[in-house]
Amino acid sequence: MPEFLTLLPPADALKKLLDHLQADPVPKQVETEHALGRVLISPVTAPHPLPEFPRTTVDGFAVQAADTFGASESLPVYLELIGEVPMGAAPEMALAAGKCVLIHTGGMLPEGADAVVMLEYTQQARPQEIEILRAVAVGENVIEIGEDVKDGQEVIPSGTRLRPAEIGGLMALGFTSVSVACKPKVGIISSGDEVIHPGEKPAPGQVRDINAYTLSAVVEGAGGEPVFYGIIPDTHPAMYAAAERAKTECDVVVVTAGSSVSSRDLTSQILDELGKPGVLVHGVNTRPGKPTILAVCDGVPMIGLPGNPVSALVNTLLFVVPVVKALLGEQITRPQPTVPAELSINLPSQAGREDWVPVILKSTHEGYIAEPIFGKSNLIFTLSRADGLLKIPADATGLSAGELVEVYLM
Amino acid sequence: MPEFLTLLPPADALKKLLDHLQADPVPKQVETEHALGRVLISPVTAPHPLPEFPRTTVDGFAVQAADTFGASESLPVYLELIGEVPMGAAPEMALAAGKCVLIHTGGMLPEGADAVVMLEYTQQARPQEIEILRAVAVGENVIEIGEDVKDGQEVIPSGTRLRPAEIGGLMALGFTSVSVACKPKVGIISSGDEVIHPGEKPAPGQVRDINAYTLSAVVEGAGGEPVFYGIIPDTHPAMYAAAERAKTECDVVVVTAGSSVSSRDLTSQILDELGKPGVLVHGVNTRPGKPTILAVCDGVPMIGLPGNPVSALVNTLLFVVPVVKALLGEQITRPQPTVPAELSINLPSQAGREDWVPVILKSTHEGYIAEPIFGKSNLIFTLSRADGLLKIPADATGLSAGELVEVYLM
Repeated sequence: MPEFLTLLPPADALKKLLDHLQADPVPKQVETEHALGRVLISPVTAPHPLPEFPRTTVDGFAVQAADTFGASESLPVYLELIGEVPMGAAPEMALAAGKCVLIHTGGMLPEGADAVVMLEYTQQARPQEIEILRAVAVGENVIEIGEDVKDGQEVIPSGTRLRPAEIGGLMALGFTSVSVACKPKVGIISSGDEVIHPGEKPAPGQVRDINAYTLSAVVEGAGGEPVFYGIIPDTHPAMYAAAERAKTECDVVVVTAGSSVSSRDLTSQILDELGKPGVLVHGVNTRPGKPTILAVCDGVPMIGLPGNPVSALVNTLLFVVPVVKALLGEQITRPQPTVPAELSINLPSQAGREDWVPVILKSTHEGYIAEPIFGKSNLIFTLSRADGLLKIPADATGLSAGELVEVYLM
Repeated sequence: MPEFLTLLPPADALKKLLDHLQADPVPKQVETEHALGRVLISPVTAPHPLPEFPRTTVDGFAVQAADTFGASESLPVYLELIGEVPMGAAPEMALAAGKCVLIHTGGMLPEGADAVVMLEYTQQARPQEIEILRAVAVGENVIEIGEDVKDGQEVIPSGTRLRPAEIGGLMALGFTSVSVACKPKVGIISSGDEVIHPGEKPAPGQVRDINAYTLSAVVEGAGGEPVFYGIIPDTHPAMYAAAERAKTECDVVVVTAGSSVSSRDLTSQILDELGKPGVLVHGVNTRPGKPTILAVCDGVPMIGLPGNPVSALVNTLLFVVPVVKALLGEQITRPQPTVPAELSINLPSQAGREDWVPVILKSTHEGYIAEPIFGKSNLIFTLSRADGLLKIPADATGLSAGELVEVYLM
């Protein structure tokens, strides 16, 4: 089996692939309200400051702070009430020393005012006179012009995946549409003479295609657009033609091989023939997923995944997702969310190999317990029963019962 | 301010609301390949075992295990090679004692065979004779019928949100379409006389609507369908009419109030008039988000969110998301993913109040440092700069610098 002579650690394997990619995402203008999860293609700068006018953060009276110095419950300051600021409009009055104006949360400060005294610390003395029971400093209870964002400031960097907060920020600045990266097209080729379409009834010896659909679901979640090329017979001409067409039409191509070694060998042979530099990584030091193939053919990344469903899904997460993110130009990466848990049993592992073990998380008063699910990696329902995946790093020879581990949710 | 006389802890407030809901999700048949993130409305049981035939997990020779007992490199066993199992078809031969058959990973075991010897532990002795260098046990390197799933077994419980692994599992069983819960319609009403549509240019004193869009994005992510009712003037007739219409047309209604107290008071008054039992929770002991209102009117949950963008978003996560999940009938809940981090500074907090603090996560060799972002809660870009939210529990009077905390990604 020459393919496994040099197994690379997954991180090195991925780097080798990414180093050959030149992400050049195609811009697409979309409505901001439908841009959740899309990746920003150029930085957003503020066309005006935020807020655009000084606003109060409380209900109370707009004042000149100097007028309130020394004010207390025992020694209040008295200010003349000269009006009320309407919501959503500029105040019609200006504030001079000794005066105050009723103002509501979010209201615009009148000219001359530089602070707001909260309603709680005031009393109506006479119809046009307010007792101020506490001093305020200049700027107190006020959001100044530009306090959130300055005019011209970069507010969202290029390569940011838009979350609800960014959608809100764009709207606050009046950007009702936004330029994002087109979804990279991910060509998906299934192969294996034993594999049939899920809608068909398998004859003895046949199995339904699973990998094309788990892969497609992961790609969709990562922001790519899956493109199916069907189940291709395990022959050189058929596979070569399908892979060549997918390479022309897509930004990345993933082949999920049949289970047999000859099916995998065919994949690797074709990925090597399709363009330069061809196969870069032939086997990864991970379990499951050792037979993963990483290639670049004339600039198009091509990935060969093992046929068994668990290997295919885990290696989609390890290799296909980062490639989709790279093609989207995603630069602002958030930490990978995990769930801390206590491992229920000892998990031995081979040093030098990175293991990914499906686990069930059981909630207890002290936190989560991670219970590994043992199953041959050909069993798709092993994953469907799991809450997440536990990584045993390559430099460990295993993990011990009771050890605190981080579980990656699937 | 009578509305804040009894502040409930967020968990109690939510429970009070959920206790009044009767989730009765409407079923909808969707194609499995487009069902990612949808919630299963009834349990899936296997219409046949998986696998449906005994398969080998390796390349090698199908044998009767008893024939190999005692086999070793120094004392091999010799078996007669009687053929090869084709991929994707039933073997044409049956295996008798003393015979073996060449078989490839995923291939169907011939009748009479009960184990497979890996290729590595064999040698071709003569054209029709194989040397077996290692003994195998019955069932070794074989997946038995039903080893993944038994006939009739419940494989995915009702109320499960479908992940890539479940999509794969459904396909493996031939379910190319699946019955899921319809997306709950979430009516969104913006109010506040100072609030304008994001596409308009604000005059002095006006601000663009942010909350309707952050809310809509969160709802979409949670599996709901946002329905906009526009920006409604802060008058009783206008707000009542909009809320009543939304209540008729939607499964849950969210009102994002204007910033002013009078705008919030109007919301609470209307939610109390619209149906029984009306307002259940008037103020939550959390920061930001104290003025949140939870109501149920004639069976429809109605939520009043504070006007400022940070409060509105945090409370959407705390209250709107769980309601959407409840309406979807989601029962299998996965743990909330977090990122462990070391807190950079002391964070004081008021005992009895649950605080949510936006933080930036900085990566170091030892892990993540969580740096709180301080900003008035009216600043939307406070959230857009944040990687996640840090919870200071109600029973803490703060957190200390250097403490290990869990950060919820946004």
